[in-house]
Amino acid sequence: PANKKLLFLPGDGIGPEVMRQVRRVIDWLDRKRNVTFDVTEGLVGGAALDAYGVALKDETLADALAADAVLLGAVGGPKWDNPSDYTKRPEAGLLMLRKELGLFANLRPAVVFDALVDASTLKPDVIRGLDIMIVRELTGGVYFGEPRGISDIGNGERRGVNTQVYTTSEIRRVARVAFELARKRNRKVHSMEKANVMESGLLWRQEVTKLHQEEFQDVELHHMYADNGAMQLLKNPRQFDVIVTDNLFGDILSDEAAMMTGSLGMLPSASLGAPDANGGRKALYEPVHGSAPDIAGKDLANPCATLLSFAMCLRYSFDMEAEAGMLEKSIQNVLGGGMRTADIMAPGMARCSTTVMGDSILREL
Amino acid sequence: PANKKLLFLPGDGIGPEVMRQVRRVIDWLDRKRNVTFDVTEGLVGGAALDAYGVALKDETLADALAADAVLLGAVGGPKWDNPSDYTKRPEAGLLMLRKELGLFANLRPAVVFDALVDASTLKPDVIRGLDIMIVRELTGGVYFGEPRGISDIGNGERRGVNTQVYTTSEIRRVARVAFELARKRNRKVHSMEKANVMESGLLWRQEVTKLHQEEFQDVELHHMYADNGAMQLLKNPRQFDVIVTDNLFGDILSDEAAMMTGSLGMLPSASLGAPDANGGRKALYEPVHGSAPDIAGKDLANPCATLLSFAMCLRYSFDMEAEAGMLEKSIQNVLGGGMRTADIMAPGMARCSTTVMGDSILREL
Ligand SMILES: CC(C)[C@H](C(=O)O)[C@@H](O)C(=O)O
Ligand SMILES: CC(C)[C@H](C(=O)O)[C@@H](O)C(=O)O
Repeated sequence: PANKKLLFLPGDGIGPEVMRQVRRVIDWLDRKRNVTFDVTEGLVGGAALDAYGVALKDETLADALAADAVLLGAVGGPKWDNPSDYTKRPEAGLLMLRKELGLFANLRPAVVFDALVDASTLKPDVIRGLDIMIVRELTGGVYFGEPRGISDIGNGERRGVNTQVYTTSEIRRVARVAFELARKRNRKVHSMEKANVMESGLLWRQEVTKLHQEEFQDVELHHMYADNGAMQLLKNPRQFDVIVTDNLFGDILSDEAAMMTGSLGMLPSASLGAPDANGGRKALYEPVHGSAPDIAGKDLANPCATLLSFAMCLRYSFDMEAEAGMLEKSIQNVLGGGMRTADIMAPGMARCSTTVMGDSILREL
Repeated sequence: PANKKLLFLPGDGIGPEVMRQVRRVIDWLDRKRNVTFDVTEGLVGGAALDAYGVALKDETLADALAADAVLLGAVGGPKWDNPSDYTKRPEAGLLMLRKELGLFANLRPAVVFDALVDASTLKPDVIRGLDIMIVRELTGGVYFGEPRGISDIGNGERRGVNTQVYTTSEIRRVARVAFELARKRNRKVHSMEKANVMESGLLWRQEVTKLHQEEFQDVELHHMYADNGAMQLLKNPRQFDVIVTDNLFGDILSDEAAMMTGSLGMLPSASLGAPDANGGRKALYEPVHGSAPDIAGKDLANPCATLLSFAMCLRYSFDMEAEAGMLEKSIQNVLGGGMRTADIMAPGMARCSTTVMGDSILREL
């Protein structure tokens, strides 16, 4: 059979150096587990803007569409900040990938590693053992709704508009992902919106309720206003199993949850499309953290989030549960042994570089 | 001169019982400080729905428009939850008050009281001494934008739409409030939006920058994406002084900040309109907490947030700094003495009812 096709998009800032550690795991898979990947590499974000004047070239998009999975580092940085032309932003490349690949379901686990429970600004008793899966809708809502734009309205005044919009099928397909994930976890879903002030949120609530009644009555469903969700996450995070929410609330709430774990440098994410005829689905994997321009190129970044994103890739795109588990276990063991990159450094631990963290994980494997 | 005119809207759940404690402070002001208020009372939210079939009667709105200030308890509860008719929700009464009174600037302090530093789920070292003022835009954005609604689009599909919209003057007037507050505090403003994905956020950023350059260069201005804001609040809350943001982000971020303090039952808010010709401005004061139907009528609720809202009322609407300070100091002293309502109870403290908390504060006064 044809080799598994991966597209690597290292992007900006620390993207390239954390992605380099994934290359090493791929070599290991080839040598020791007899699994070969065809890896293509491309540019996205600021790197693509610099090289081609666009945040994502047509050819790169075509490569992404042809790949079995895309692995992305990070995009953005002060160098490309604040241009008022939306198409000339690093973020445009990422948004185009999400939209064109139809990656409507963004899975963002917020997990507290036992070895890192003290890294959080929250009390250890509150977050120990935390394991939440946030499912964020990723191709709809206010990110893509039309009409949008800024217009002059006379008297020196301007008006900025965006449109929050969801349809029945957009809501159902992402809610389905959440319910199915909950079935493999603790069978509990919290759906979050502002149904009390937004009709799009009311539709969200009604459609999630309907799908639940039709097909997922074995899963516990709760509705929560998003502002209350932001509070409940802090008050009692372990009440949650799976959270499903829209693109914009998901952006904020998943970042809140991620920071609660105290170790952003450890958190992976997966963005999935609809299942196709062959049982496959388009997918993009990326760490939750950003491009961290301040430490880029210094061999200081934590590669774990990107390696764990690759573990998600092995699991969701290639059904390689064994290898995904091995990689995850190796990372845990290395942390358990006291190795720490700067971002998760703590008293009594051994501070190491990106490369040395990679070495240790490879050795564990 | 005419007496100061106050409209009391106790609303639902614990609203009436916490407002009762304000009555006692008003009596005290009358007897001991020679300040007399004309207090009118009305219904809002679920209480108004039950009595009149609408969440706010025209007469009550007229009373609010005629008052120097409105004091509100809380609205909402499961009894009125989930009706699909938006006008038949308790929240509709509150939204109408905000809009019709033109209360565009919602001031939500997130303050950690020394006596309550352990009540937070965050580590004491992270939040001790926290004092943030969040200024949330309250009469614009997706809460009120048109078009909005749910429509059938064929094939059994529906579509839910809301519109996020801001104009130059809406942004400038709320940013002005934030800059002016910062001048009386630590001269630092963080403005939060998603200018990287929303044009309405880009306009927000541009207009805030412009106003800053024109009139407030003595204040430090930072721009932050709202998702990063949600993280930075948790990572290092004391980096913030004043935060200004839109209606929807403000809803979420101010609730996050409020819960971080660990004592929601202690947090007041003020909603202010534009200054009028006489130097006055329309204003509504309310606690940040909700109607807490589960403990309503049991004399368990914490009246402090409502009393502190009344202190804000004395300060902002009636220029009674001395009396506002006395009330605030009394509350701090009572907490310092170990009195705690159930929501902020801690080992070694004295648990008390709503009424007894009120008694103690009155005694302090
Ligand atoms: C970079 C930005 C466009 C993006 C978003 O807002 O979705 C990021 O914050 C994220 O959460 O992946
Ligand atoms: C009750 C609700 C309409 C309201 C809002 O969303 O503004 C509340 O959450 C608040 O923050 O005051």
